[in-house]
Amino acid sequence: MITIALDAMGGDFFPDTNLEGALLAAKKLPIKIILVGEKVILEKKIKQLSDFPTDQISIHHADEIIEMTDSPSKAFRKKKNSSIHVGLNLVKENKAQAFVSAGNTGAVLTASTFILGRIDGVDRPVLTAVIPSEKKPLVMLDMGSNVDCKPSQLLQFAIMGECFSKEIMEVKTPKVGLLNIGEEKEKGNIITQQTHDLLEKINVNFIGNIEGKELTKGSVDVVVCDGFVGNNMLKFGEGIVKMFKAFFSEEAKRSLLSMIALLLLKPTFKRFKKKFDYDEYGGAHFLGVNGISIIAHGSASEIAIKNAINMAYQSVKTNMVSKIENALTKSELQNISEVTISGG
Amino acid sequence: MITIALDAMGGDFFPDTNLEGALLAAKKLPIKIILVGEKVILEKKIKQLSDFPTDQISIHHADEIIEMTDSPSKAFRKKKNSSIHVGLNLVKENKAQAFVSAGNTGAVLTASTFILGRIDGVDRPVLTAVIPSEKKPLVMLDMGSNVDCKPSQLLQFAIMGECFSKEIMEVKTPKVGLLNIGEEKEKGNIITQQTHDLLEKINVNFIGNIEGKELTKGSVDVVVCDGFVGNNMLKFGEGIVKMFKAFFSEEAKRSLLSMIALLLLKPTFKRFKKKFDYDEYGGAHFLGVNGISIIAHGSASEIAIKNAINMAYQSVKTNMVSKIENALTKSELQNISEVTISGG
Repeated sequence: MITIALDAMGGDFFPDTNLEGALLAAKKLPIKIILVGEKVILEKKIKQLSDFPTDQISIHHADEIIEMTDSPSKAFRKKKNSSIHVGLNLVKENKAQAFVSAGNTGAVLTASTFILGRIDGVDRPVLTAVIPSEKKPLVMLDMGSNVDCKPSQLLQFAIMGECFSKEIMEVKTPKVGLLNIGEEKEKGNIITQQTHDLLEKINVNFIGNIEGKELTKGSVDVVVCDGFVGNNMLKFGEGIVKMFKAFFSEEAKRSLLSMIALLLLKPTFKRFKKKFDYDEYGGAHFLGVNGISIIAHGSASEIAIKNAINMAYQSVKTNMVSKIENALTKSELQNISEVTISGG
Repeated sequence: MITIALDAMGGDFFPDTNLEGALLAAKKLPIKIILVGEKVILEKKIKQLSDFPTDQISIHHADEIIEMTDSPSKAFRKKKNSSIHVGLNLVKENKAQAFVSAGNTGAVLTASTFILGRIDGVDRPVLTAVIPSEKKPLVMLDMGSNVDCKPSQLLQFAIMGECFSKEIMEVKTPKVGLLNIGEEKEKGNIITQQTHDLLEKINVNFIGNIEGKELTKGSVDVVVCDGFVGNNMLKFGEGIVKMFKAFFSEEAKRSLLSMIALLLLKPTFKRFKKKFDYDEYGGAHFLGVNGISIIAHGSASEIAIKNAINMAYQSVKTNMVSKIENALTKSELQNISEVTISGG
């Protein structure tokens, strides 16, 4: 049975949302979950529950907590007994097959890289998210783990993203696009221009540049960009969804009529949430490390935690790590990397 | 009286939307408008109108058109009689005080830089847009005119943006933020880290880094970023608004009840459009050139053209060009530029 280690002390509302998310996931999936964190706190919480599935969920003690405000590199060095360290070590020792955390993103990224190591052929692991579009959800990477990227790194992101789209999103032949400010090959900054050339030479289904407005149409399945742009766009998108929510809340207060109309539209807004809310997409995969590591939003709800656990389960089931390793081998990237280096 | 030269042959629906936009603007503002384009076509269109304000709107012939698909630099060199060239020359010769176009953005940017020249102290002019937020519209730059920016250029953008916010948005002491993936000074890529340091040293009301999700809250009045990120975010934002519109259109077809509820919410969606639709913000200013040049969206409606003309009018009235020149002089940027250059 697949076992998932869940950081019980991660996120803004720990341990409650993590515990509730674990319960929801355990009901739905044939998995075991290890709650990693302060044993005393967790046991106390569990005692309050009437039907806790002891056969599916267990506790593994970790006596330190990395705070959301801690410096990732410092926390990684100093808090070796944190729930993040302990959880990732469970994966390394194969006592669990995946790690899920809503904790300090930087700390999870650092610890994942150092504890799990990287897949052969990966220079930099990459934070990979699923985002909504008109037609279907799509895969976007990098979402913030590498702010200054070389073309050779973006090529690896393309291959990992394609692999993720095939395995997790079940797209047979994913279309891979390079985020850019215009469709034409010569558009963009120096990095994207170089990357465009190289993407045409490797074994990936590259369909060319893709603009921000095309993303939301769902014209591609995988979007490659550097982590600075990706992170800014992701947060901007989240902000826009929040801004619209705030707008409609204000509108409901305007008049009885608008309140009634908005109430009538409750199913519509439920579908809206289902389609556009980042919670629904669970968490971001940190692809390229030698194991499954998933980071949920700090403000993740129990639903988001459940969805993140589900994503972890899918990744283990589809052998994501070895699929990426194979894809990198078959990509003909090796030849390109040398060209890039010799070309400056 | 202030005179605006309007590119009658710009945009996807020329000349109609331009002509209609000019009529709307002429009704509202104490201005003269020169329609620049094919005289025969424009005269024919005007003859069909019953109450054309000949005292306010005139035609200036230009016998070439730069297509949306033309290469900007090539079109600039080859089509010297284009409506874009002729319109900008009217500004240069002071026969008009501002130029507005919904045409080929790249061509308008290139022609504006070469025909109008740059304000003293400006290295690179910058495409500046007004974008919606929860609280109030804010100023964002660069929106795509410079894809690889040096810190010294971003500093100039900050000063020009602050000036624009004061004059056009009427914010007394605008808060200037640097777009970044975290609030902390040390966050971001190499360029933003260097820029953050330098922004603290010049005469600008810099409040620090600002994340994408804070933009939509309206926590700042001016957001500075490079044109690659800015353009991608702008287009992503436009795409999201379109995606939501498409969602609600589909929902209206779902059932009679949802259709009725959405009809009841017509005033709400009208306010939604007013607040979030990019049309409402007219066009983007190309700040830093020695004159007023405004670029509207290629798909701009007559309302967007009217709003772009209004923005041009406001810029002329507030003496934007000399205000920017003064702000650059007072910014103490001169000292910094030298430090940046010597520092590499």
